[in-house]
Amino acid sequence: MQIGLVGLGKMGYNLALNLRDHHHDVIAYDINSEAVENFKKDGGTGANSISELVSLLSSPKVVWVMVPAGEITSNVINELKGLLKENDIIIDGGNSKYKDSIARAEELKKLGIHFLDVGTSGGISGARHGACMMIGGEESVFQSVETIFKDACVKDGYLYCGKHGSGHFLKMVHNGVEYGMMQAIAEGFEVLHKSEFDYDYEKVAKNWNNGSVVRSWLMELIEDAFSKDAKLDEIKGIVHSSGEGKWTVETALDLQVPTPVITLALMMRYRSLEEDTFAGKVVAALRNEFGGHEVEK
Amino acid sequence: MQIGLVGLGKMGYNLALNLRDHHHDVIAYDINSEAVENFKKDGGTGANSISELVSLLSSPKVVWVMVPAGEITSNVINELKGLLKENDIIIDGGNSKYKDSIARAEELKKLGIHFLDVGTSGGISGARHGACMMIGGEESVFQSVETIFKDACVKDGYLYCGKHGSGHFLKMVHNGVEYGMMQAIAEGFEVLHKSEFDYDYEKVAKNWNNGSVVRSWLMELIEDAFSKDAKLDEIKGIVHSSGEGKWTVETALDLQVPTPVITLALMMRYRSLEEDTFAGKVVAALRNEFGGHEVEK
Amino acid sequence: MQIGLVGLGKMGYNLALNLRDHHHDVIAYDINSEAVENFKKDGGTGANSISELVSLLSSPKVVWVMVPAGEITSNVINELKGLLKENDIIIDGGNSKYKDSIARAEELKKLGIHFLDVGTSGGISGARHGACMMIGGEESVFQSVETIFKDACVKDGYLYCGKHGSGHFLKMVHNGVEYGMMQAIAEGFEVLHKSEFDYDYEKVAKNWNNGSVVRSWLMELIEDAFSKDAKLDEIKGIVHSSGEGKWTVETALDLQVPTPVITLALMMRYRSLEEDTFAGKVVAALRNEFGGHEVEK
Amino acid sequence: MQIGLVGLGKMGYNLALNLRDHHHDVIAYDINSEAVENFKKDGGTGANSISELVSLLSSPKVVWVMVPAGEITSNVINELKGLLKENDIIIDGGNSKYKDSIARAEELKKLGIHFLDVGTSGGISGARHGACMMIGGEESVFQSVETIFKDACVKDGYLYCGKHGSGHFLKMVHNGVEYGMMQAIAEGFEVLHKSEFDYDYEKVAKNWNNGSVVRSWLMELIEDAFSKDAKLDEIKGIVHSSGEGKWTVETALDLQVPTPVITLALMMRYRSLEEDTFAGKVVAALRNEFGGHEVEK
Repeated sequence: MQIGLVGLGKMGYNLALNLRDHHHDVIAYDINSEAVENFKKDGGTGANSISELVSLLSSPKVVWVMVPAGEITSNVINELKGLLKENDIIIDGGNSKYKDSIARAEELKKLGIHFLDVGTSGGISGARHGACMMIGGEESVFQSVETIFKDACVKDGYLYCGKHGSGHFLKMVHNGVEYGMMQAIAEGFEVLHKSEFDYDYEKVAKNWNNGSVVRSWLMELIEDAFSKDAKLDEIKGIVHSSGEGKWTVETALDLQVPTPVITLALMMRYRSLEEDTFAGKVVAALRNEFGGHEVEK
Repeated sequence: MQIGLVGLGKMGYNLALNLRDHHHDVIAYDINSEAVENFKKDGGTGANSISELVSLLSSPKVVWVMVPAGEITSNVINELKGLLKENDIIIDGGNSKYKDSIARAEELKKLGIHFLDVGTSGGISGARHGACMMIGGEESVFQSVETIFKDACVKDGYLYCGKHGSGHFLKMVHNGVEYGMMQAIAEGFEVLHKSEFDYDYEKVAKNWNNGSVVRSWLMELIEDAFSKDAKLDEIKGIVHSSGEGKWTVETALDLQVPTPVITLALMMRYRSLEEDTFAGKVVAALRNEFGGHEVEK
Repeated sequence: MQIGLVGLGKMGYNLALNLRDHHHDVIAYDINSEAVENFKKDGGTGANSISELVSLLSSPKVVWVMVPAGEITSNVINELKGLLKENDIIIDGGNSKYKDSIARAEELKKLGIHFLDVGTSGGISGARHGACMMIGGEESVFQSVETIFKDACVKDGYLYCGKHGSGHFLKMVHNGVEYGMMQAIAEGFEVLHKSEFDYDYEKVAKNWNNGSVVRSWLMELIEDAFSKDAKLDEIKGIVHSSGEGKWTVETALDLQVPTPVITLALMMRYRSLEEDTFAGKVVAALRNEFGGHEVEK
Repeated sequence: MQIGLVGLGKMGYNLALNLRDHHHDVIAYDINSEAVENFKKDGGTGANSISELVSLLSSPKVVWVMVPAGEITSNVINELKGLLKENDIIIDGGNSKYKDSIARAEELKKLGIHFLDVGTSGGISGARHGACMMIGGEESVFQSVETIFKDACVKDGYLYCGKHGSGHFLKMVHNGVEYGMMQAIAEGFEVLHKSEFDYDYEKVAKNWNNGSVVRSWLMELIEDAFSKDAKLDEIKGIVHSSGEGKWTVETALDLQVPTPVITLALMMRYRSLEEDTFAGKVVAALRNEFGGHEVEK
């Protein structure tokens, strides 16, 4: 079917190619005109503005928004709000906060514009070759565009989750789980790294990926990473985060769910951003005060 | 090849069938004579005692020990020590502490008996249809019995890890990672469970297993579990542990590796064993003391 | 000086008596008329409504609000907003969110009404006999009523912290620290409780309060608690929380400060509210799936 | 009474002066002869060797050992074992592992030598001016030397805890609690430090020490520290640990007590010893693999 796509970043571009391969008619816009030109070279249709993109679509128009969550998503959807008409559909496939999605759905509903909140997992390769999607919104709206999800995802890889917000909520929790799993794997390798034994980490990961209880896509990815940089000597252990882990923890706090593992996974990322910590200084100073333990200067 | 097997429990029995299917000549003993009889019915050879088992083997004799870690493994290996001769091989395929394995290797070496410490992952189905194994000990000894590992494991599923202890050490850390991954998944589902949305957990797990970043064998297993008991209403959240998670944490403490995720996964299991906690009482009493906050009786 | 007081709960009533003892002229209102009657019997002046309370004050009027944070505080301050005039002063001595306090200060400023956000610590006995207060707002406003803080607090027990919000922010963090300290103490006693030794906890707390590094008011309070109920047999370890611990964690997340101890103290409280957990069920189900470990029903 | 003292380090020296002030006859030895000379100048009696020290004591001889836990304590007690006779008393006032103390008591009992395991808290100033002590061993032996504890400690500052090991066990747990309290305080100050407000930390600590719920000796110590170095600019947040926190966690694991706060306090110390972490590298590499997130080099 015909799909307008706003956003040709790492995820959006690959999704566009994926949909094109499945014979959808993708008309794409990005603030970066080079990305639009590239997409045209790759056989897609480009637009020079959101309004041009909307004008190129037939009604009911379907616009997939694939831009960074927060302000940028807000701006794009606000602009679309002025251009779209009753029964048109906006799909937010980015990592928006589920509460924002609930609010947006309500706002758009006043104008008769439909909204689906879609969490997209699987990384860049997933976007290109088969993603995993979690969809929230009205079921009839979902059904009217189900063919997009079917084609963009691997088999059994999309799920209609229920009312507005349920797609982005599920994706948020998915990322929380991901944080915890990644940190679990990471701690294991650090124990190996400091042990008296001399493991080949790529081989360990490969071993664990074949028949063990912890076999997983993340373990395959770290096998790949070790194959390129055996001891990860070339990179620093500084770990940023993009919001969803934090939202999962905040949501867990609101729901009074103890989530120590997801939370500590997040906090160890925060810790990795600090070279030295004020908390550490306080403890060091205290030990010096009562026990005369030396402090490092 | 000819293999003596001590232990026909859940893991041992399935390993025996697995090796039998690969045309190895398995002679098995278990303290439970019924298990031995069953194995004979399944086409294997049974022994009524460890000494009989040893007597039935040709030299150099290979005995695979697959019994609970700790005292029972110690007793079995001690008995074997008196029966085996120079160049015979003992393989401990159980979940022994790696330090015990290092000590055993040393003890056995004095008698010229070889020892391999083998961590076995993949659960019961793995033991039966293709496991994952991590092997520590002398490389030449490993090579002399490599065919066993090759046949018992899935492709690329066995790894020679290095000196004595390295096999059980790697399995220990594997289980630590497993604890963390399981708790991460579990926390995620509890957040879903307490949310305002109404997810079908089996479908969520199936969705996540198809194309998402968190796809993994553990997620497949929880998909299976949800397919049988949609909300896990039939079971309690009481979680025991069998040692390896604790050893991973103890080892991390010795090596000064911060492992908050693996540790908290273990501690939440401990917490699940308590109906009420003394720590909770202390905090409740304190809140009552300073703020007059009511306590529950 | 003359002070209007809204709220005669546990904290407010004791603060009123405290201020009365220091010869301040306290005119108090509470939604519970019995509390107002009691206060009159105790020599104070009562008011039957907020508007009556305001009418009884001379200009510039000073109103201390000491009611539960959130909606009730909002309602009280909104009502006061319609009754007070330029240069009157509202003091919020409750546990309001610092962001709410910043917003309120701004709102009130438009009307020329001054605002101080005051965190009050020390519990009920502190409110009565000498509290600890942390004050945010304009310094000149603080100075104009400093005598209240001086009299209500122990020596060196009040601190002007800076701009609007800084008082409630500091109190919030104080409570976060309190959560962590309480949980540390509680964990220690649970270790004692499950040990092979037979400690008298009251004596232990008394011992630790005399000369040890961990001597503290909280340790004195638990000594008191143990003196009344030696093993805390009469209470349950169910621990509620009133918001400030959670806000501390949320703020730490916003500031990217790793606060594992404060966070886990909070999460163990949440855990104490659950008899059984869905997370525990998920882990138990997983162990059953891969290892055949029995589940409890 | 007459007391032999082995060890004139920070704790031992101050304890010696403390006991001297209370008119005990302290005969002291240290491997560092300068410390012995200083003690003589301070009015004490010195010995040039452990055997000389023992020879200078009247029977029943009382020897207080105040040296680093582990090997050194073992060596000293082993040497004393050869020199002392039935009914003599060894007091280990250091931070020994309680299991070691139980074993030592048993060993010494065979020779009729009595043993007390004494945990000493209160830091250097406590050792000098009034400590807190926790005593394990036979009650009659404790009573025979109770005057030492009475004089060395503040009022109500010593506690006979019960059988062998109970003194060092209690001190161990005390230190675990201390770790947790320190980290709670430290996290609070880091939140303040990264906040939008501009607190004077010395004043904050002083405020909290006067009337607040978190008033404590540790808070007084950090007030002192801030008075000397307002933002702790002169020190690094590198925090070592001396064993007791780790033993508390290990004991908690053995007893299956969830101690997240004490454990995380310890693990954040470990984290402070690492400039970069392998775990962080693993997570950074994983994020790069699936999402193309940039890594820092």
